[in-house]
Amino acid sequence: MDIRRRAKQTKRSLETAARSARYEFFAAVARRHRCRTIFLGHHADDLVETFLMNLFRGTGAEGSRSIQTVSVHVVGGTELTVVRPLLSVWRGEIDEYIASAGLRFREDASNADLGPTRNRMRHKMIPLLEKEFGRGIRKAIWRAAAIAAEEDALLEGLLPAGLRASETLSVAQLRSQPIALQRRAIRRWLRAHAIADISFDLIEKVRRLLETEADVAKINLPGDRHARRRSGKLFIE
Amino acid sequence: MDIRRRAKQTKRSLETAARSARYEFFAAVARRHRCRTIFLGHHADDLVETFLMNLFRGTGAEGSRSIQTVSVHVVGGTELTVVRPLLSVWRGEIDEYIASAGLRFREDASNADLGPTRNRMRHKMIPLLEKEFGRGIRKAIWRAAAIAAEEDALLEGLLPAGLRASETLSVAQLRSQPIALQRRAIRRWLRAHAIADISFDLIEKVRRLLETEADVAKINLPGDRHARRRSGKLFIE
Repeated sequence: MDIRRRAKQTKRSLETAARSARYEFFAAVARRHRCRTIFLGHHADDLVETFLMNLFRGTGAEGSRSIQTVSVHVVGGTELTVVRPLLSVWRGEIDEYIASAGLRFREDASNADLGPTRNRMRHKMIPLLEKEFGRGIRKAIWRAAAIAAEEDALLEGLLPAGLRASETLSVAQLRSQPIALQRRAIRRWLRAHAIADISFDLIEKVRRLLETEADVAKINLPGDRHARRRSGKLFIE
Repeated sequence: MDIRRRAKQTKRSLETAARSARYEFFAAVARRHRCRTIFLGHHADDLVETFLMNLFRGTGAEGSRSIQTVSVHVVGGTELTVVRPLLSVWRGEIDEYIASAGLRFREDASNADLGPTRNRMRHKMIPLLEKEFGRGIRKAIWRAAAIAAEEDALLEGLLPAGLRASETLSVAQLRSQPIALQRRAIRRWLRAHAIADISFDLIEKVRRLLETEADVAKINLPGDRHARRRSGKLFIE
């Protein structure tokens, strides 16, 4: 599959296009084998790296699902449950266990080709942060990520049914929610409409459609699409 | 005031002792002038530094109040509202405004003496992160902190009245809450009892008292104090 071309065609980042291709592959395998749960081997060091990368890129909640122990993804009509049972185990502990138990294992060839950002994070930034702030920072970041994942799940559960990624969003219902939930509802809604690369700024632009005195009733979205306010509802066209 | 001695006496970190001395000073001034609201000049760069420092030290929610636009502190019976109106303005923008308007300003002498951690963060780590991940990281971290502050306020509001820092905590009521709120309730409760240096691990230790099958009904707290479960309640002795 040519991910680069696909990213261009769908006007998404290379990384977003690669992730959706990966999940389509998982969903196809799951359908073929009639199983709906997939176990992935991400460990505590992966979690720390991903958390920092999301933080530095401002991905926010969008990226946080990749560091949850259990997450549900709907891919082409297939509901896929992804479980990551090793998120609280460090890479070093896994290596020790493998060595002590004399297990054979297979290293995924793509691990050697990490991509420049994760590579710099793993081999440069985290060792530097440890040197500056002490060996405890890995654990501190892991804890922050664990707390954030719990709070994230809780906040998702607070979204009223009417605001869960329906075709349109009610302006009045959205306005009645705290800002944190407005942002989440909008993020879900844009994602359900397959809007690419949803940033904090984009969400804040959509939130501005909620202001009563707003004379703007239409904003641009990536991929030549638009969000519009009409008759008390938000639409995507 | 000898902060170092005070930290030793109260078995708290130097930084925690310094913060409480600062807030006692604010409260004393507020009482003397019969005002209850204090404006502080922290700006967007301070917020980014504080957010990262809290993250790397695992301070969690404890430290997050220092980067909220409005926060309420009870100090020696005085309720103090702290407002930070400049948290969304960058230091460079403030400097430009001062220069263009020809304003006089006073640099706090203590700014030159930042403390080693904040100093390294400001002059070493953030420039390094910008070099590695691009100039956008300051803004990305600022946004993450802004989202976290909103979500933090929302989650605080979800705590049931019975779990808001009362003398004892009901085990049954605590158990009925999601983990994220259990952690918050315990944190508030320990803070209300002036327990020093509340860490994630300490909170998790207290949470373990909730397990039905726990044979441990008592755990150690800093400062030679204890949390104990008895007759369906948690106590501090």
